[in-house]
Amino acid sequence: MYRYALKIEYHGAPFVGWQRQVNLASVQGAIETALSRLEKRPHTIAAAGRTDAGVHALAQVAHCDMERDWEPFRLCEALNYHLKPQPVAITACARAPADFHARFSALQRRYLFRILSRRAPATHQDGLVWQVKQALDIDAMQQAADLLVGQHDFTTFRSTICQAESPVKTLDHLGISRVETPGGTEIHFDVRARSFLHNQVRSFVGTLERVGAGSWTPEDVAKALAARNRAACGPVCPPQGLYLADVTYPDDPFQSDAAERSGP
Amino acid sequence: MYRYALKIEYHGAPFVGWQRQVNLASVQGAIETALSRLEKRPHTIAAAGRTDAGVHALAQVAHCDMERDWEPFRLCEALNYHLKPQPVAITACARAPADFHARFSALQRRYLFRILSRRAPATHQDGLVWQVKQALDIDAMQQAADLLVGQHDFTTFRSTICQAESPVKTLDHLGISRVETPGGTEIHFDVRARSFLHNQVRSFVGTLERVGAGSWTPEDVAKALAARNRAACGPVCPPQGLYLADVTYPDDPFQSDAAERSGP
Repeated sequence: MYRYALKIEYHGAPFVGWQRQVNLASVQGAIETALSRLEKRPHTIAAAGRTDAGVHALAQVAHCDMERDWEPFRLCEALNYHLKPQPVAITACARAPADFHARFSALQRRYLFRILSRRAPATHQDGLVWQVKQALDIDAMQQAADLLVGQHDFTTFRSTICQAESPVKTLDHLGISRVETPGGTEIHFDVRARSFLHNQVRSFVGTLERVGAGSWTPEDVAKALAARNRAACGPVCPPQGLYLADVTYPDDPFQSDAAERSGP
Repeated sequence: MYRYALKIEYHGAPFVGWQRQVNLASVQGAIETALSRLEKRPHTIAAAGRTDAGVHALAQVAHCDMERDWEPFRLCEALNYHLKPQPVAITACARAPADFHARFSALQRRYLFRILSRRAPATHQDGLVWQVKQALDIDAMQQAADLLVGQHDFTTFRSTICQAESPVKTLDHLGISRVETPGGTEIHFDVRARSFLHNQVRSFVGTLERVGAGSWTPEDVAKALAARNRAACGPVCPPQGLYLADVTYPDDPFQSDAAERSGP
């Protein structure tokens, strides 16, 4: 068998999430179905992040095993052909060593969360951002975010259905900034960690938004973290502003020549 | 009557364009219908740019006349309420002097054109960019674009149904650059002039894309311009990458305090 790494972009709206579910549209299911058009047998792929319903990806990474020695560019093109018209695109494909595992080899995941803060309804960005009507204080949100960085017991920011063995995780980075986009000014959250608890990013953003709006102080966030109690969390924000933006590996399979040939 | 200036954002896809047409969905019609919910009578509004079917706006400007002395923030909110769920949003509203005319007072229009150059299909940006599969040479496109700047007879880049009296226009600026967006790298065309001929921007972009792809040289563009012949134009590109991005007025009505209060 030949192992390939796939870099995947998708719009989360039509899917129940990454993970395959019987009779429901999932991103994993869409890609596995496309793979079975190329090699007629059941396929099972593994991904770096099992994104929830409605969550997008800019650069999800998965790996697949093929019987034929596919040229990566051809595999990429064939998958994109069979994925149409679903909003899932393989943006890069590369040969990977047999011990490469999209989930277990990953050193860091980076999530982007986009907020549009304005009163007028979103038009072009509808479904791509979380719109809040009030103005947000970025400095206050960043001050609160700084308290979350590092190794902590994140029970407060963890969904009750989270299956991780431990609530202790190390948050590498949580940066909040105003960003000019073609559609106007947005507030972006750049969140990085080796791994995340279920709903952790959305629990962070929902809570920090309360700080930005002035109804929580940064100290309230410190107390919520220290409480190690899910009930102390602020509201969990909706999924449509969340993007799995990047996955880091010790040996990035997409740095190879083969991967470059998948580009324009 | 009280005159108001409206700044308008819209997604062009569901509309036949800005201009009202009987029994068809237009942006003008949508806003006039919303106005008639506020003051029950026929309304006719004028806009800075009469965008074509499928063309978007980030900051179209129109003016309307009201019998009641509406507080601009209230007018903005009421219009957005009645425009839902159509992808049209009033992003600012301001009192304007009686001699303000959204079309005739405008000093400059700025259009943005977004190209996504990659082989993998667009997911999040579908309908918001023109996707081309090949790589484009930005330097060559800019070299050709520079030949179009200034006062010229633009007959070559003008739709045969254009109603402008003269094909002579002054192109103030045509800048092409690679821009990082939340969804990845795009190529943006920044096109500015006091006024444009029908299909002028899409004729420019479609022709310059041929230069970027290497099938035309900048000299070919110079010859096409000199030909003053519509048949000499390159292909007209599709509308979904085009945005009316800004309109400049000698006294910007949105600089007033009232306009500021429409923000978040």
